[in-house]
This record gives sequence, structure tokens and C-alpha cells, in this order.
Amino acid sequence: MTGRDGGADIGPLGDFDPVVILVRPQLAENIGTTARAMANGGLFHLRIVAPRDGWPQERAWYASSGADRILDAAQVFETVDDAVADLHRIFATCPRPRHVVKPVMTARGAAAELRVASTRGLRTGILFGPERAGLDNEDMARADTLVRYPLNPKFMSLNLAQAVLIMAYEWFLTEDMTPPRELMTNETHVATKGEMENFMSHLIRDLDETNFLRNEQKRPGMVRNLRHFFTRGEVTEQELRTLHGVVSELSSARRNRS
Amino acid sequence: MTGRDGGADIGPLGDFDPVVILVRPQLAENIGTTARAMANGGLFHLRIVAPRDGWPQERAWYASSGADRILDAAQVFETVDDAVADLHRIFATCPRPRHVVKPVMTARGAAAELRVASTRGLRTGILFGPERAGLDNEDMARADTLVRYPLNPKFMSLNLAQAVLIMAYEWFLTEDMTPPRELMTNETHVATKGEMENFMSHLIRDLDETNFLRNEQKRPGMVRNLRHFFTRGEVTEQELRTLHGVVSELSSARRNRS
Repeated sequence: MTGRDGGADIGPLGDFDPVVILVRPQLAENIGTTARAMANGGLFHLRIVAPRDGWPQERAWYASSGADRILDAAQVFETVDDAVADLHRIFATCPRPRHVVKPVMTARGAAAELRVASTRGLRTGILFGPERAGLDNEDMARADTLVRYPLNPKFMSLNLAQAVLIMAYEWFLTEDMTPPRELMTNETHVATKGEMENFMSHLIRDLDETNFLRNEQKRPGMVRNLRHFFTRGEVTEQELRTLHGVVSELSSARRNRS
Repeated sequence: MTGRDGGADIGPLGDFDPVVILVRPQLAENIGTTARAMANGGLFHLRIVAPRDGWPQERAWYASSGADRILDAAQVFETVDDAVADLHRIFATCPRPRHVVKPVMTARGAAAELRVASTRGLRTGILFGPERAGLDNEDMARADTLVRYPLNPKFMSLNLAQAVLIMAYEWFLTEDMTPPRELMTNETHVATKGEMENFMSHLIRDLDETNFLRNEQKRPGMVRNLRHFFTRGEVTEQELRTLHGVVSELSSARRNRS
């Protein structure tokens, strides 16, 4: 599985990761951009059935933005039957299936099933049809399951690489543990409540000095509002140091004026 | 919001749907393919900040595969500040943020927040940087939240339209109710258990006739195995009629031979 030209390392190859199968693709550029989309999602096995212009095609490598290893290792077959013979389960992407009795899954649902099959040691494949025409009825009859992406029903048209990207992205997400939200803090850390309180004391002390909080009746509410503002989101220790500096600087400027 | 040339209807415009903001895009083609990706996911508001080659550019319409109305209604601004001035919340896509203290969300997490903001009546925007360079530090300082897609860390590079497609797809999914799996049956319907039992009786009767089930000890297990096979997935009423025909045909061929 090493590239014939030793392309860059683009991630680990899983033996039971799904095989992307391009059926009768027309343009070599689209095979290249497909390889790029596969690499984005960590899919590395590419098979090509009856490419219109033959194979290999230099333009594919040019269009792949560095996903050479996928193209180097791509296998070419004459028929869909040949391309799927050693696989256990086949999905077929199909935007508008008609007149077929077949389970249809969303991309997300299919990705989950592909992951389950992979951990069971089953080899899976995903068929993508040729540009414009899509898969024909014979191709679809070879698939266990169709995949239809939920997309704007009035504007479903995706190009080949985009269709592959959505599946590759969903495949990657099935094992991704990134929290939906985190605070990027780099070299600093999220401030503790003590560090925040330290800053609040500094701020309130300086505001008391200016008589900004002189209305005794309103004072508790005003202090509370400031606390609410400063606790709306996480704050880093470094940002608190900057805020200490801002308060000190404004205070000393005022003192110098008076 | 109607197109200047009355482009095709590509779906409803939501007043509080996110605005896609392309910052200093270079190629008009990429603005066109961005519009296409937006239409795929039902995003219709496009703003363009300082497009390198000016605006409008005919090549954008050519590349948009019919998403004309988005391009017709696109607004052009000189600065990011101008482009976001009337919005309430800004997300910035950024594959490898460095040296910033900022919340970072996944595309899915950000889409959920965009939907929540939309239902609250807040106007949101998503910044996408120029090809290659991406957003600069000043652009990112204008955003409330960064968005980083979970993708193969060894191969993150997406083109502009693909980056927009992932956000548009996730936006569409926040309101999509498609079940992860369903059986497409078209004009027929899923068989009832009674219809299945009817077929099983036919099959077993004909097998009994051939003496295929003559071993009395093994007979119950063999019948059970056949039942297991025929109940592995949903079957339609039409398929059962075909199977009835297959059994009858094989039986009568055998009878004719003997």
C-alpha cells in the first residue's frame, strides 16, 4: 500500500475502512479531487470501475492536492461486480432513487453502519456514480443499502468530490472525540474563581475611589451587574492580568489629572 | 431579495439564517461554487468583503450551477467591520488557529448554536478566509467563536466551496428529520407477518412435496433456519408475490420432469 512515488504520509490505512468505488467516472480531475476529499476524512482505499479516459491519468494527481498515495494505490476494475467481489457490504450514493425497494440511509446513518461493519471485520464499499448520470439501476441492484444525503430538496446537485467529501467527513466524525465547544487558551490557562475575585476586588476598589459607586442603595446591584458581565464566558489568567493593567492605568491617569 | 434576473426558486429565505461572508476571495469561480454549496444546505445570504477581482464577475454565475439568486442578492463590503456591523454573532472558520484565546467549536456544534441564535432572532455570520492564506489575526479578532472542522489532521486542506459545504450541510441537518434508515418501498408496502407466513407455508408445503424436509429430526431446525433467513430484513408485499411465483415455477418444473 505504499505509493509508487512514496507520497507524503497522510494517515494510517485501516484494513476494514470503507473502499470508495468510483463507477465509470468521466474526468480525471474528478478522480483527483475525490482522492483529496477522501484524505480529508481519512478514507484511503480507492477503486475505479471503467474510467472513461483510462487510467492512470496525470491530471488526477495534479488535482489531488497531495493525496498521491490514494491515487498510487487505486485499483481499476472493468465491472462493478469485479470491484465488489471481495467486499461484504455495499452502500450506493443516490440522490433520487426511484423504483427500487432498498433500505435508504442518511450519510450519518450510513457512516455509523460502516464503522460498525469495520469493527466487525467486514470489508465495505461505497459506490459513487458517474458525473451527471449517476449510478444506473444495475449498479444499485448490487448495493445492500442506498445513501441519500439530507440536503435542500430544491438544490441537491453535488459534484463528485463534494459527494465523497460528505461521506468522508461523516466517516471521520464517527470516531472523532472533539468536544463541540472548547476554549483555546494556548500558553495561558482559564482563570480560577480566586483569580477573577482578585480582579473584581481591584476594579471595585478603584471604582470606589472615584465615587462611581457612591449611591449606597444602587451599589450592590451595580457590583452584581459587573460580576455578571465578567463571568459571561471563560476568562484566562493572562486576560485578567491585562484587565488589571487596564484598570490600574485608567486609575493612575485619573489620579494624575486630579 | 428577488434576483435581478429572477433565478430559479431554490428554497425559502430565512431572515435570521446565517450570512456567509467571504473575506477577500480571489477567484470568482470560488464565489460561484460557494453559492452552489450554500444552496445545497439552504443558506441564501452571501456577503463578499473586498473581492480581489471586483464584483460582479460573470464567471461566478457560470460556476454556481444555478444558484443565481444567491449571487444576484450578494452584498459587497470594503471591510470585515462593515460586513458584520448589523449582525449579532460572528463565527470564523479557521483550520489551525494559533495564538488566540477564543472559543473553538466543531462545525456541528457551531451549526447548533447558529440554529439557536436564529430562533432567538439574532443575525449571525460565518467568515471564510481567502484561498490559501485564510483569515488573518485582525479578522479573527472580530469573531465571537472560531470553527474548526474535525478532519484528518494530516490532510486538512479544503477548498473554499468545500469548507462552505460542510457548514451548509451541518446547518441543514440541524432541522432535518430524515430517519437514519428507512425502507424505500415505492408503490408497494412492507409485508405483514401474515403475508410472510402465507409465503412460508407455500414454501414448506412444496419442500415437503419434494421430500427436502424428510429427516423428521432435522425438519424443525431446517424450517426455523429458513424463517430466520426470510425475516432478516423487511420484505415488501410485491417481493413476496415474486417469491411465491419463484417457488411455484420451480415446483411445477420439477413436477413436469417427474
